[in-house]
Amino acid sequence: MKTILPRFLLLSAVLFAFGARPAPAQVVNKPSVGLELAKKIAAQAEAKAAENKWTVVIAIVDDGGNLVYLAKMDGTQLGSIEVAQAKARTALKFKRPTKAFEDVVAGGRNAILSLPDALLVEGGVPIVIDGAFVGAIGISGMKSSEDGVVAAAALAGLKAQ
Amino acid sequence: MKTILPRFLLLSAVLFAFGARPAPAQVVNKPSVGLELAKKIAAQAEAKAAENKWTVVIAIVDDGGNLVYLAKMDGTQLGSIEVAQAKARTALKFKRPTKAFEDVVAGGRNAILSLPDALLVEGGVPIVIDGAFVGAIGISGMKSSEDGVVAAAALAGLKAQ
Amino acid sequence: MKTILPRFLLLSAVLFAFGARPAPAQVVNKPSVGLELAKKIAAQAEAKAAENKWTVVIAIVDDGGNLVYLAKMDGTQLGSIEVAQAKARTALKFKRPTKAFEDVVAGGRNAILSLPDALLVEGGVPIVIDGAFVGAIGISGMKSSEDGVVAAAALAGLKAQ
Amino acid sequence: MKTILPRFLLLSAVLFAFGARPAPAQVVNKPSVGLELAKKIAAQAEAKAAENKWTVVIAIVDDGGNLVYLAKMDGTQLGSIEVAQAKARTALKFKRPTKAFEDVVAGGRNAILSLPDALLVEGGVPIVIDGAFVGAIGISGMKSSEDGVVAAAALAGLKAQ
Repeated sequence: MKTILPRFLLLSAVLFAFGARPAPAQVVNKPSVGLELAKKIAAQAEAKAAENKWTVVIAIVDDGGNLVYLAKMDGTQLGSIEVAQAKARTALKFKRPTKAFEDVVAGGRNAILSLPDALLVEGGVPIVIDGAFVGAIGISGMKSSEDGVVAAAALAGLKAQ
Repeated sequence: MKTILPRFLLLSAVLFAFGARPAPAQVVNKPSVGLELAKKIAAQAEAKAAENKWTVVIAIVDDGGNLVYLAKMDGTQLGSIEVAQAKARTALKFKRPTKAFEDVVAGGRNAILSLPDALLVEGGVPIVIDGAFVGAIGISGMKSSEDGVVAAAALAGLKAQ
Repeated sequence: MKTILPRFLLLSAVLFAFGARPAPAQVVNKPSVGLELAKKIAAQAEAKAAENKWTVVIAIVDDGGNLVYLAKMDGTQLGSIEVAQAKARTALKFKRPTKAFEDVVAGGRNAILSLPDALLVEGGVPIVIDGAFVGAIGISGMKSSEDGVVAAAALAGLKAQ
Repeated sequence: MKTILPRFLLLSAVLFAFGARPAPAQVVNKPSVGLELAKKIAAQAEAKAAENKWTVVIAIVDDGGNLVYLAKMDGTQLGSIEVAQAKARTALKFKRPTKAFEDVVAGGRNAILSLPDALLVEGGVPIVIDGAFVGAIGISGMKSSEDGVVAAAALAGLKAQ
């Protein structure tokens, strides 16, 4: 997507300069995490976990909340397969790190536990590029604060790309 | 599986003795609860329950979280059939007794109530042999603390075997 | 697990060499797909798909039917995320390629359409190493015969490794 | 249950002879498979399977279709855990061997594939004692005709008890 979109936009601009329509007015163009970027992000997560001798599941969803990439490091507890996906989905769907939700519950607002299909535990972080929510990553396997460390490392340097 | 594995291990041991690779490098070798061990553990659970005139469901899952053995003592509430399995699965998937989760919730960390497919009530305990998580047992039917007593009795003496 | 198992196997081999029990009699030892092997298999699948300009989801489960790796190639239909996992799980759980089931249905035995949680369409293949079912791959995204081509390419050369 | 009921009925008869009520008129007394009988039946199934070097899952449900006993022989395909339960439940709920359904589908009546939560494949047989449907057994793991052989062996001699 990343490599295709610029050319597409360039072409659109050229066409527009010659009086062509830049794009049907009714569609929305959305940037999204593709497999190549997902693998790059996941590699950073895996390296950070390995560096600490941690084992985690890494899940990455796209801008629609759909799974793009998942890797389970050997020996990670099986429950993390679902938990990592749930954290990523929650972060994407609610446009915030799941830690924000965990803090709200810790502050006593239990009512948000009733949110459907939302996992309110640290380790899920949205992937934001140029202000757009293009996906999210979910990490599970260690203490949730450690999962959060891995998620942060996974996204480090991303905005500069 | 039963007939293939012993030969495989024998070969591995022989190869190892001669400095060869003990197994194809790319596979992970995992010990797991088999039916014989499951029956032995369940018999200890049933004896403990009967000794207290308790009735419970006993569920045992393997290292992949799949059911190996289940027995429902006469008169046990029907809901315990699912609950015992959920406790066993939770203990296996998250590599800890479900009581650890119950304690965390009791301590005020309500956020983990949002964990998907996890039953955070005492009575599920992982089966750990020589440091490996080979399965888990789930007990349900009485008060959860009593379920925990049965689960502990079920696994008593296991490491010494 | 990763750190514990090698020592466990080493000890077993040593004990075996001295005529001792290779492992506690009551546990079953099972080889399983790890992340390294899963990535290698998936890379072969992705290369085969790219070679044909096909886009697919690649899902790999371990010997317990639990997801180890998933990658969705850009542009693949979203339904394939679930379908690829279901094919892999079916192939693992029933120890046969899902094509075998599709052929049985095509042959007129419609009764097996009632199998619970089984996807009877080509594209799921068990991963068998030295006679042991260590996992399975599921491919979805193209025509099911094309999914089957990708799955076969993914596992090519595996036994010789 | 088996040992309790006769005494209960005897007592009722005695009470009745002296003008006491035999039982509240509005309740229904139902014979049902208990754990002791389930284990006896399952032992016969396991012996038959072992005799043929087959590996199967054995599931036994009570008169309410609820699981009483399950055992998975080592190496049995994981899918059989669900399939054995589904066969038992189907045989109990529809008061007939699942083979009867398989034959109907084989005869071309595909419409019954739409029955909810029914598995229409041989290997499930109701447990009938003195004309009462007290439970059912489901066997899965081999070819369905072989599963049927195991189920039949499991129930052999039962009516004579």
